[in-house]
Amino acid sequence: MSRILQGLRVVESSAFVAAPLAGMSLAQLGAEVIRIDPPQGGLDAARWPVTRDGKSLYWAGLNKGKRSVAIDISRPEGRELATALITAPGPDAGLLLSNFPARGWLDFGALRQRRADLIMVNILGDSEGRSAVDYTVNAAAGFPFVTGPTDVEGPVNNVVPAWDLATGMHAALGMIAAERHRRLTGEGQLVRIALSDVAFAAAGNLGYIADAAINGADRRHYGNDLFGAYGRDFATADRRRLMLVAITQSQWTAVLKATGLGDKLALAAQSLDLDFTREGDRYEGRAAISAILERWFAARPFAEAAAALEGAGCCWGPYQTFQQMLRQDRRCSPENPMFAEVEQPGIGRYLMPGSPLDFAASPRAPVRPAPLLGADTDAVLREVLGLSERELGGLHEAGLIGARA
Amino acid sequence: MSRILQGLRVVESSAFVAAPLAGMSLAQLGAEVIRIDPPQGGLDAARWPVTRDGKSLYWAGLNKGKRSVAIDISRPEGRELATALITAPGPDAGLLLSNFPARGWLDFGALRQRRADLIMVNILGDSEGRSAVDYTVNAAAGFPFVTGPTDVEGPVNNVVPAWDLATGMHAALGMIAAERHRRLTGEGQLVRIALSDVAFAAAGNLGYIADAAINGADRRHYGNDLFGAYGRDFATADRRRLMLVAITQSQWTAVLKATGLGDKLALAAQSLDLDFTREGDRYEGRAAISAILERWFAARPFAEAAAALEGAGCCWGPYQTFQQMLRQDRRCSPENPMFAEVEQPGIGRYLMPGSPLDFAASPRAPVRPAPLLGADTDAVLREVLGLSERELGGLHEAGLIGARA
Repeated sequence: MSRILQGLRVVESSAFVAAPLAGMSLAQLGAEVIRIDPPQGGLDAARWPVTRDGKSLYWAGLNKGKRSVAIDISRPEGRELATALITAPGPDAGLLLSNFPARGWLDFGALRQRRADLIMVNILGDSEGRSAVDYTVNAAAGFPFVTGPTDVEGPVNNVVPAWDLATGMHAALGMIAAERHRRLTGEGQLVRIALSDVAFAAAGNLGYIADAAINGADRRHYGNDLFGAYGRDFATADRRRLMLVAITQSQWTAVLKATGLGDKLALAAQSLDLDFTREGDRYEGRAAISAILERWFAARPFAEAAAALEGAGCCWGPYQTFQQMLRQDRRCSPENPMFAEVEQPGIGRYLMPGSPLDFAASPRAPVRPAPLLGADTDAVLREVLGLSERELGGLHEAGLIGARA
Repeated sequence: MSRILQGLRVVESSAFVAAPLAGMSLAQLGAEVIRIDPPQGGLDAARWPVTRDGKSLYWAGLNKGKRSVAIDISRPEGRELATALITAPGPDAGLLLSNFPARGWLDFGALRQRRADLIMVNILGDSEGRSAVDYTVNAAAGFPFVTGPTDVEGPVNNVVPAWDLATGMHAALGMIAAERHRRLTGEGQLVRIALSDVAFAAAGNLGYIADAAINGADRRHYGNDLFGAYGRDFATADRRRLMLVAITQSQWTAVLKATGLGDKLALAAQSLDLDFTREGDRYEGRAAISAILERWFAARPFAEAAAALEGAGCCWGPYQTFQQMLRQDRRCSPENPMFAEVEQPGIGRYLMPGSPLDFAASPRAPVRPAPLLGADTDAVLREVLGLSERELGGLHEAGLIGARA
């Protein structure tokens, strides 16, 4: 059985998170993804976190399973090589992914002259063409003013680059949707997606725009409380933390069962003229609920609380640092088929994820590390463009391509 | 020109964010997406935010452009109707999306008996089968301990449901990748994806697992600072806030140009034996950089600072509340082709996003509101299953289907 996207060939010219993630997601589903970088490395070649000797763990993380080609695209001959790779023939090729401006050597019109059915997925920062990254888009999209402790006055940034992640996945979807269209009609196209559009669309999709427009709401920080239902973090007697959620009625019933606090919670509801079987009432009465549950959690160690929650089928989870996640959580270990311990060339062996998508008809691809920069230059130019050893030697000598393997 | 996914028919049985978002993303690209709910509404029918009279803005946000069918699936005849919809013939049908457990009437093996090439994308909470939602998965994935102000001790939750958003987009990609495979081979399949896998994979992809494993790091809260390069929020004289980012060398050069503080920043670098042309050095020296920039921003109003940053080509953005985003940002207005003011039945007219993906070969689909619950029941059962008016009348009378239009 082959990988679900086996046979597709995508050329990627990219940096940072969204576009590399899109390419990596396609590679982890079986596509051949060729990332082109300058011989000295692209803009993200040294991005932190780095090892003690300066190797980028970030770059390694976002380029797993790709082939790396190093070409000096600052010179016309280099640009010609890159263009030839992008527009090489084959029904499953002619797919370009980039977060760089679609001009110069990445001008879609010019590339299309060389391959009429080219598909180019272009990720932009800002829908109006200004420079923008996840952090600046997030600042504009409202969320920092509702994130974080209730006593914080200013904005609180996400550390999870949510817009990069969502944009990368949109881009991968856009690529496969466009490839489907080309398979049915023969037609290629330019597909564009902006980080800022993804963030603003999410604010709309999650009801924040409607809440502002229809209810005139402008929500503020609400700490670790869920909005609109019941959910919060709790500390146990041994100072561990956990998140407990009761959105649905069955989740709420499980909380009552786990804690045995049904009578006390009913009194609290009565005292506020609320009905805690309704999710909105649980939200309105959340302080009263929390006052009761806080004592219950504070009175017992984590293990005891966890056993009670688990036994009652509660929706809950422990808080974990990255170290705890890596050392103590079986879901983040080689026992999870998504993960494997893999040797990353030049860095060492550590736990790496493959695709979270599990296709029954295609076995999970082995988890592959990122290539060393330029490691596949000769092989790709030989296979895709049919260059001879003599031609490759000449390109190396001229400094047009890098990292002779 | 048709929509990029026009012709595909997806049946969705879902609740909350990830699965409804996946279905909506496909609908916004032109697929016919039929969401099945119980006649009284599903688990998320009343999810907050709600209007003053209790209508869910959340449900409206996540079900735009779908068709809504109300069937009482608690009764065998209802389950039979739903099964018939899911397994109805047609080369572009037989696509099922759900975040409910794949058992009972959603058992993949049983459904496959009725349509051998069925594709089912099943979103799970936890990779090991426990109950889990975005909030509990996020707690386990390390990020709350690195999010928020540096003086906060406990975890800080994301308000952006990043794992729901990323999982929804993965699910949409999984659906189209599986449909491509079926088109090429005739083979359907079960595709599974867990929220927890998406979160743990992201922690790996972004280098957090490697940082913990290779460097032994266990990072703590670092406020609104970027990690590993320079970026932070600043307050201006008139108490507005903005986010400034200098990851690349050209972004840093733009900051020097905008502020004219190159000499002072060079002295600061010298005093610390750092070289601020290196992104890692900018991170290590961020307190010194911030001390200098803070004064510059504090000394001028937002408009003046913004003009200087914009003129120099800086990567920056204002912080905005949801109200400010909606009232003041042209990117979040009908001037952006992704948005339109649309009437949401039963609620009112407000700004709604379409798909952030822009396909040159397929014009953007008009932004469509969410259906009223069950609004398409008769039409869908007539079109897809060929039911007569008499049969529909009987089903209504028996209370098996709802919301007669």
